[in-house]
Amino acid sequence: MNAGTEWLVDAEGCSAELIRDSQVLRILCEEIIAKLDLRVVGEPTWHRFPTPGGITGLYLLSESHLTFHTFPETGVATFNLYCCRPRPPFSWEQRLREQLRAAKVVVRTVDRGSEVVQLDLPGNTDRTSLDPGTSEIIPMREVSGL
Amino acid sequence: MNAGTEWLVDAEGCSAELIRDSQVLRILCEEIIAKLDLRVVGEPTWHRFPTPGGITGLYLLSESHLTFHTFPETGVATFNLYCCRPRPPFSWEQRLREQLRAAKVVVRTVDRGSEVVQLDLPGNTDRTSLDPGTSEIIPMREVSGL
Repeated sequence: MNAGTEWLVDAEGCSAELIRDSQVLRILCEEIIAKLDLRVVGEPTWHRFPTPGGITGLYLLSESHLTFHTFPETGVATFNLYCCRPRPPFSWEQRLREQLRAAKVVVRTVDRGSEVVQLDLPGNTDRTSLDPGTSEIIPMREVSGL
Repeated sequence: MNAGTEWLVDAEGCSAELIRDSQVLRILCEEIIAKLDLRVVGEPTWHRFPTPGGITGLYLLSESHLTFHTFPETGVATFNLYCCRPRPPFSWEQRLREQLRAAKVVVRTVDRGSEVVQLDLPGNTDRTSLDPGTSEIIPMREVSGL
């Protein structure tokens, strides 16, 4: 049963300065969202860990989610983009080399709801369309307040 | 360069009623968080898509993230647990069969920052420890308010 496609993107050898810079990461995330025509639901959650740690960001999308974690202490930045609907490929390798000075970028594409993993291949765009239409944020008090 | 371990968990044949029930999903997420001694940073973000859609939840963790998406229309629930520090294994198959009535559960373990994918194996617990210590939420106005 297909439940969408996830891109697991690991960038190594990044500039420590760039991957602890929230503006650099914000611009990159906004580029991904705009280029792939993703729709952000609610407010993204970002968190800066204390030095020498990096930044984590989570975006809830109507297509599923975009998350990233940066590790300036090792020069690593990792991204997950999970889409339950077809999306065009993003130029992960080129843009992470340009924006974060990554020396190496590995992109893995995983079909969710099945057991297929592809390495360094653009995502299969023949996915089942699950248009979420209109939707609602669940207040956490509804979820956790019993 | 190791950047943690991610568990990709896909459950099929779930009860549509159970995977559109925010209380059931809340209890399950809280069990995962408690059993693995994870620390939630800030408020989780949950979203309910319109019928026949399901629920998405994102938790920012000091260990990285926990996310899930449910698709009642196809009986599928998918989970991602990304930990940049060693965690014990969780009984995904047993608990998703019990809690969501899943007929099939596939657990894939992915080493981030490397190219290793393991299918249906518990996670490697010999990870580099990256203790985040104290930390701060980044207000989005700082991130996006140039």
